[in-house]
Amino acid sequence: MPAISKKGIQMPESPIRKLVPYAEDAKKRGIKVFHLNIGQPDIKTPQVALDAVKNNTIETLAYARSEGSEEYRAKLANYYIDNNINVSANNIVITTGGSEALLFTIGSITDPGDEIIIPEPFYANYNGFSTASGVTVVPVISTIENNFALPKIEDFEKLITKKTKAILICNPGNPTGYLYSKEEIEKLKQIVLKHDLFLIADEVYREFTYDGLQHTSVMSLEGLEQNAIVIDSVSKRYSMCGARIGCIVSKNDTFIKTAIKFAQARLSPPTYALIASEAALDTPKSYFEEVKAEYVERRNTLIAELEKIEGVKVATPKGAFYCVVQLPVKDTDVFAQWLLEDFNNNDETIMVAPASGFYSTPGEGKNQVRIAYVLHKKDLIRSVEILKFALDKYNS
Amino acid sequence: MPAISKKGIQMPESPIRKLVPYAEDAKKRGIKVFHLNIGQPDIKTPQVALDAVKNNTIETLAYARSEGSEEYRAKLANYYIDNNINVSANNIVITTGGSEALLFTIGSITDPGDEIIIPEPFYANYNGFSTASGVTVVPVISTIENNFALPKIEDFEKLITKKTKAILICNPGNPTGYLYSKEEIEKLKQIVLKHDLFLIADEVYREFTYDGLQHTSVMSLEGLEQNAIVIDSVSKRYSMCGARIGCIVSKNDTFIKTAIKFAQARLSPPTYALIASEAALDTPKSYFEEVKAEYVERRNTLIAELEKIEGVKVATPKGAFYCVVQLPVKDTDVFAQWLLEDFNNNDETIMVAPASGFYSTPGEGKNQVRIAYVLHKKDLIRSVEILKFALDKYNS
Repeated sequence: MPAISKKGIQMPESPIRKLVPYAEDAKKRGIKVFHLNIGQPDIKTPQVALDAVKNNTIETLAYARSEGSEEYRAKLANYYIDNNINVSANNIVITTGGSEALLFTIGSITDPGDEIIIPEPFYANYNGFSTASGVTVVPVISTIENNFALPKIEDFEKLITKKTKAILICNPGNPTGYLYSKEEIEKLKQIVLKHDLFLIADEVYREFTYDGLQHTSVMSLEGLEQNAIVIDSVSKRYSMCGARIGCIVSKNDTFIKTAIKFAQARLSPPTYALIASEAALDTPKSYFEEVKAEYVERRNTLIAELEKIEGVKVATPKGAFYCVVQLPVKDTDVFAQWLLEDFNNNDETIMVAPASGFYSTPGEGKNQVRIAYVLHKKDLIRSVEILKFALDKYNS
Repeated sequence: MPAISKKGIQMPESPIRKLVPYAEDAKKRGIKVFHLNIGQPDIKTPQVALDAVKNNTIETLAYARSEGSEEYRAKLANYYIDNNINVSANNIVITTGGSEALLFTIGSITDPGDEIIIPEPFYANYNGFSTASGVTVVPVISTIENNFALPKIEDFEKLITKKTKAILICNPGNPTGYLYSKEEIEKLKQIVLKHDLFLIADEVYREFTYDGLQHTSVMSLEGLEQNAIVIDSVSKRYSMCGARIGCIVSKNDTFIKTAIKFAQARLSPPTYALIASEAALDTPKSYFEEVKAEYVERRNTLIAELEKIEGVKVATPKGAFYCVVQLPVKDTDVFAQWLLEDFNNNDETIMVAPASGFYSTPGEGKNQVRIAYVLHKKDLIRSVEILKFALDKYNS
């Protein structure tokens, strides 16, 4: 039998998705599962986007332009200008989700054996895309005690080698919910300019900032034009994760031209989803205000409920819709599977994402889980209640 | 300024898409361009697929399961069983187009520096995906004189090294239109079993076989279960290139499990397109009969018209909807660009794909182009007329 690649063996299983078969088995046994594991909001997609697809007049479902139509990219540039990111259509490459934006970016700036520094814990699939590209993730550790703030400059600098090509951040952060301050982004600017690195910022949660705090894009800093790359997506902004439309934004023309070659190889982004995404740009402001108010309430509810449980520690998120929660258990991989396989409370249980998959340092995050507060307030209250019962039973 | 990757520099431009800006400029000057460059049929998508999307009742456009829903994969397995490919849902991974199916397959079975043998000329993007994965394409040359038939077993065997991981074929062939006989597939089976290689077959044109010839899938051969991998897509079958849904089919469980890890990293295929693709499985047989009759007429028309031009040589395709055409010019890259930039006949011109991009052997295919017969008969006749005028002018 021919062999699988070393890369294929090393590809990590997704901490968000690897327990799906257990959840499906639980459902088959009649158990209701509250999904706190995945950033799949229950928020409705803007009607203007849904309607555009329902009212389409396509007769032949044709390829789109590889980098996205000029019309869509021009409209998108206006959205960025409204967000203090001064770009034009030519600075944008449309991708199949933020996932592909990351894949093209890593492919365009790294060769096998190169290194990317990422504050840890980080979005699990950064590991997957790096492994797929033969790139080494070099983690710089941020801690729950420090609320997952940016590590010190010295911590970054001692990790930089000749193979380092970029620093990658997620802002606001998945899984931490941490929102980097303008000062922190300025610090990163200093490092990347000094060491001639790219600064990649995954800003898909740009709109989701709380407590009156403002988001600072890496694209808004002067002098960083050749170094800054933004990864973006419509998934969270418009609660349309299933569209699979994202983009790369950069003022570095050589980089953009290279990314377009990757885009041409896969032909085109999905056409129906492009229709929805272009229409979504006309979503009224009130939509975002309502959504934001909803998330603030969910966050406050979740944190308040979690803090009532003895032995549970949680870093209060300032953005996105995740938080990392430390639990009084030894191994959350085992615990999360047990929740689905062996536990229920009145035929209900919860699914969480074990945090070990959000770290690349072995052994880190073993007693943490990521919880996505993407469910309705009453479901969150019930979910934390289930967690409490589960911890009691598991630890007795 | 931070540097682009070596891989990024090496990424080939798509011969199908690199001239798009010139075509758009021509259109801005009021020139009508007949697109013979891209396999984008003008055939209508089955109504049942279009209606399913128009009648969707989605309120939150959510992620789909990474490997595709059980329901869709089970329905798809029935389609394969009807095509002499005896598989179940668990042998299938749904992907974002055939493109992603290839990317996951290459990632699952090769590491950087590994080699894949491909009969040349081949689908240009095989080069792109190989470069993106750091894999070397080793071409085995088939010739227009021989109608692009499978090269001799000895030709393959002398190219096999310790780094060879797979043989990749496209059947029916893009860009050649060649349909491999059962005997040829049996020959490939002998080679891959003897040398413990994967046999990857891109069978996206399975339905498009002419002159009463039958398609032989690599999945239909006994004893090849652990070696055979099929790449598939809804793009051509249902004229829905813009959907971006494809799949990987294999009975090798270790391979499928590895491909699913790649699928999890990118979260999910596009949800609207999944609705269209699942519904498309209910397309009536009459649709394919009509489409096939249409392509036979187009092929016959195109070949007959091309053969009237002096100095033009064409290999008659037995499948798919492409042919490789040898022209009396030195460099079709220059000629194809000239057609868009400097030529028109009554304000009309044609766009063709220079064939050099379908070869990896330097200098090969310089006097060839790929023509896709995806346009209506009268447009094909006019296109060849334009080609004749253009050749006369270009060579005078």
